[in-house]
Amino acid sequence: MAKLAVLGHGVVGSGTVELFLKNREQINRKNGIDLELGYVLDIRDFPDLPYSDKFTKDINDILNDDEVTVVAEVMGGVNPAYDFVLSCLNKGKSVCTSNKELVAKKGAELLKAAKEHNCNFMFEASTGGAIPIIRPIHRCLAGNDITACAGILNGTTNFILTKMITEKMSFEDALAMAQELGYAERNPEADVEGHDACRKICILSSLIYGKHVYPDTVHCEGITKLTLEDVAYAKSWGGAVKLIGSVKRTEDGKILPMVAPRFVCGGCQLSNIDDVFNGIMVWGDGFDEVMFYGRGAGKLPTASAVVGDIIDCAKHSKTILSQMWEDSTDTDFIADYKDDSVSVYIRVQDSDKAQIEALFGECEYISREGQPENELAFITPVMAEKTVDEKLSALSGNVLGRIRLFEG
Amino acid sequence: MAKLAVLGHGVVGSGTVELFLKNREQINRKNGIDLELGYVLDIRDFPDLPYSDKFTKDINDILNDDEVTVVAEVMGGVNPAYDFVLSCLNKGKSVCTSNKELVAKKGAELLKAAKEHNCNFMFEASTGGAIPIIRPIHRCLAGNDITACAGILNGTTNFILTKMITEKMSFEDALAMAQELGYAERNPEADVEGHDACRKICILSSLIYGKHVYPDTVHCEGITKLTLEDVAYAKSWGGAVKLIGSVKRTEDGKILPMVAPRFVCGGCQLSNIDDVFNGIMVWGDGFDEVMFYGRGAGKLPTASAVVGDIIDCAKHSKTILSQMWEDSTDTDFIADYKDDSVSVYIRVQDSDKAQIEALFGECEYISREGQPENELAFITPVMAEKTVDEKLSALSGNVLGRIRLFEG
Repeated sequence: MAKLAVLGHGVVGSGTVELFLKNREQINRKNGIDLELGYVLDIRDFPDLPYSDKFTKDINDILNDDEVTVVAEVMGGVNPAYDFVLSCLNKGKSVCTSNKELVAKKGAELLKAAKEHNCNFMFEASTGGAIPIIRPIHRCLAGNDITACAGILNGTTNFILTKMITEKMSFEDALAMAQELGYAERNPEADVEGHDACRKICILSSLIYGKHVYPDTVHCEGITKLTLEDVAYAKSWGGAVKLIGSVKRTEDGKILPMVAPRFVCGGCQLSNIDDVFNGIMVWGDGFDEVMFYGRGAGKLPTASAVVGDIIDCAKHSKTILSQMWEDSTDTDFIADYKDDSVSVYIRVQDSDKAQIEALFGECEYISREGQPENELAFITPVMAEKTVDEKLSALSGNVLGRIRLFEG
Repeated sequence: MAKLAVLGHGVVGSGTVELFLKNREQINRKNGIDLELGYVLDIRDFPDLPYSDKFTKDINDILNDDEVTVVAEVMGGVNPAYDFVLSCLNKGKSVCTSNKELVAKKGAELLKAAKEHNCNFMFEASTGGAIPIIRPIHRCLAGNDITACAGILNGTTNFILTKMITEKMSFEDALAMAQELGYAERNPEADVEGHDACRKICILSSLIYGKHVYPDTVHCEGITKLTLEDVAYAKSWGGAVKLIGSVKRTEDGKILPMVAPRFVCGGCQLSNIDDVFNGIMVWGDGFDEVMFYGRGAGKLPTASAVVGDIIDCAKHSKTILSQMWEDSTDTDFIADYKDDSVSVYIRVQDSDKAQIEALFGECEYISREGQPENELAFITPVMAEKTVDEKLSALSGNVLGRIRLFEG
C-alpha cells in the first residue's frame, strides 16, 4: 500500500481527488498498484466531505510519512508550491503537477532535483489540460527531429475569439460572458494578455529542445487589441483569428518561441478548434505533422491528466520516466522575432493601393461588409518582421490592425 | 552499448533504419542511452546500403547475440513474425512492432510472454501510424473510465472517400488512383473491406477494456458498396461519409466494437479529416473527449512510432511499461450490434413518405442534385438496429442505400 498526497483542494485539487476515488478500484487493478488517498493539504477546512479525515494544514505530515510516495501539487502559483514540491522531491517522493507557472519558471531545477533523488517530476496537466501532449512529445515522437510546435493553448481566449467570430460579440462582451460562465478569472490578465499561453509554450519549447525557456524571454501578445473588424477580415480571407503559442527552430539553429494572435487559414486543423477547446500541432522529420485536441482546462479534464501522472509515478516509483532538460543561463539560443520571415495582415485608414504596392510589392486585398471607403486591408508577401516595421513607418495613413499569418 | 535488430527491410523497415540512423546521435544523447544498429533481417540482399554489413538471413544471429536488447518487427503478417517475436521475447529481448495483424491476433499471448521474461512488447505503430495513441490511452488517460473510442483508422479508404466527396470520383476510379499513388495495394481487400480498420479497433478495444478482442468477433463493413449518391446525400445533410472503427461500452456492461461507413456530421472533428490522414477520438468520464490526428501510414510516419518504442525499450530495458490485457476465450463480453440503438440514413426507390412515416415515425428527409422523382432519402429516429431491419423488410420499394449515423 502506498499513499497519495494532494496539495491544494481548489478546483483542480478537488477534481483530482474526485476522479481518483471514483476510479480507484479500476486504477489499482489495471495497473497492479495499491494506492490510496493519504492526505489533502489545504489551509481551509472541509468538514463535510467523505474524505474530511485526510485533510492537514501541515506539509510536514506529508513529508514525514514514508508511505507517501506520490504527491500531486495542484495549488497553482510559485509560492509556496515551489518549496513544497522541492521538499517532496528531496525526500524521494515523486511529484506531479498541473501548475504551468511553476513548471515554466522552475522546471529545470525541479527535474534535476527529481533525478538526484531517483524519483519523478511530471507535468502532463500543465499544458493542454486533459490533452495528452507531454508524453506523446517526449516518448512517442522521440525518434524525430521536431522542427516546430504550435497550438491554441488557452481555452478562455479561444472562447472569447469564438464568440467574436461566430456571434460578432465585442471583446469586452465576450470577456464578460467568459467571466460569467467561470471560464475567465475576475482579473483576466493572465489569459487575455497571453501569459498563460506563454507559460505553456515555454514548457513545450523546453521539452522539445532540451533547454529551459523562461517566460520573460518570449515575445508575447494578447488579444485585447483585437477588433471585430479584424475578425471580419479574417473570415472574408477564409480563415479565423486564433491566439497561437508557437515555437520553431530557425535557420541559424536557434529557436523562436512566441505567443500572438494569428490569421489561421480554413484548411488548417487549428481553425476548426472552437470554444474552450485546445489544439496542439507538432511537426517533425519522420511523422510530418500530428495534432492533439481536447479540453484545455476545467476541473475534471485537468484532473484526468494529473491522475494519469499519479498512476505512472505510483507504478514506476524508482524508474525515472520524466524527460530532462538543461537549465539555461543565457538567451543566445532564442531568436529575435523581428528577424523572422512573416506574411502580415494589415488594416489601414486613409492610405492608397499605389503606395502600398510601391512599399510592399504585390499584396492580396481583402474586403468586409460595411468596409468604409477610406479603409484598406491587405496581406503582405513574406518578409522579415523588421522590414514590415520599416515599410509601415513609411506608409501614410493610420494602421488600425496588424496580425501575422500562421504558416502552419 | 546495446544493439537494435530490425526484422524486415520493406517500406516500414527501411524507414525505421533510416530515421534511427539519421537521428541516432540526438536520440542517444537526449535519452541517456547508447543504442546502435546491430542487425537487419531480410531474405533479400541489399548490397549497396551504408549498413549492408548489418544484414542477416538467420534469426538465430539475433537471438543468440546478448547485446541485442531491442528488436523491431516490421515484416507484417502473422508468419513468420509471430515465431520470431515470441522467440525474441522468450530470450528477454524487448520487441516493438508495427504489425497490426500480429497484435490483433496474438497480442494477449505476446504481452504475457513479455511480462514473464521481464521485457516489453510495444505496438504504438500498429494503430494510427505516426499518431501517438497507445501510450496516450493507457498512460495519460489511465485515470479515467473510458466509455468509447472511434476513429478514421485507415488512410487508404479515407483517401478514396475524400476523392468521392470532393471530386465526385467513383469508388472504382478513386481506388485506381490510390493504387497508382501507392496508397492502396494491388489486392486492396484488407483496406476497402475494412479488415485493416478492424484489426486496429481490436487493438484499441483490447487496450481500453483489458480483454483481447479478436477480429473475427467484430462486425465489419467496408466501403465497396458506397455510391456517389450516398456521398451526395451525406453532403446535403451537412456531413460526410467516413469509414469509422468504433468501440463503446454498452448499457449491460458489454462492449461493442464495429467497423462501418458512417454519416459523420459537419460539427464532428472527424468530418474534417481528409486524404490519407487518420483521426482517433476517445471519450471518458474525466477528460470528456480528446482527438488525435496525423498520418496513419507511410514509410517515415510509421517508422516514427516504431523508433519511439525502440527508445522506450532501450531506456527501460528491465521495467515493464506496456499495458497488459487478458486473453479471452469466450465472446460473451461482445455485444450484438443488432441490439444497438442507431439512427440510420436510408435511400429507397419506389416508396412513399406515408408508408415511411407509418413505419419509422417522423423522419428527416434529405435531397440531392439530380434526385430522381421515385427516390427518397431519409434519416430514421434512433431505434434498435434489428428494428430497422424489421421495418425495412415491411417497406415497399428497393432499398438502395443504408448507412448508420455516427453518434460521436
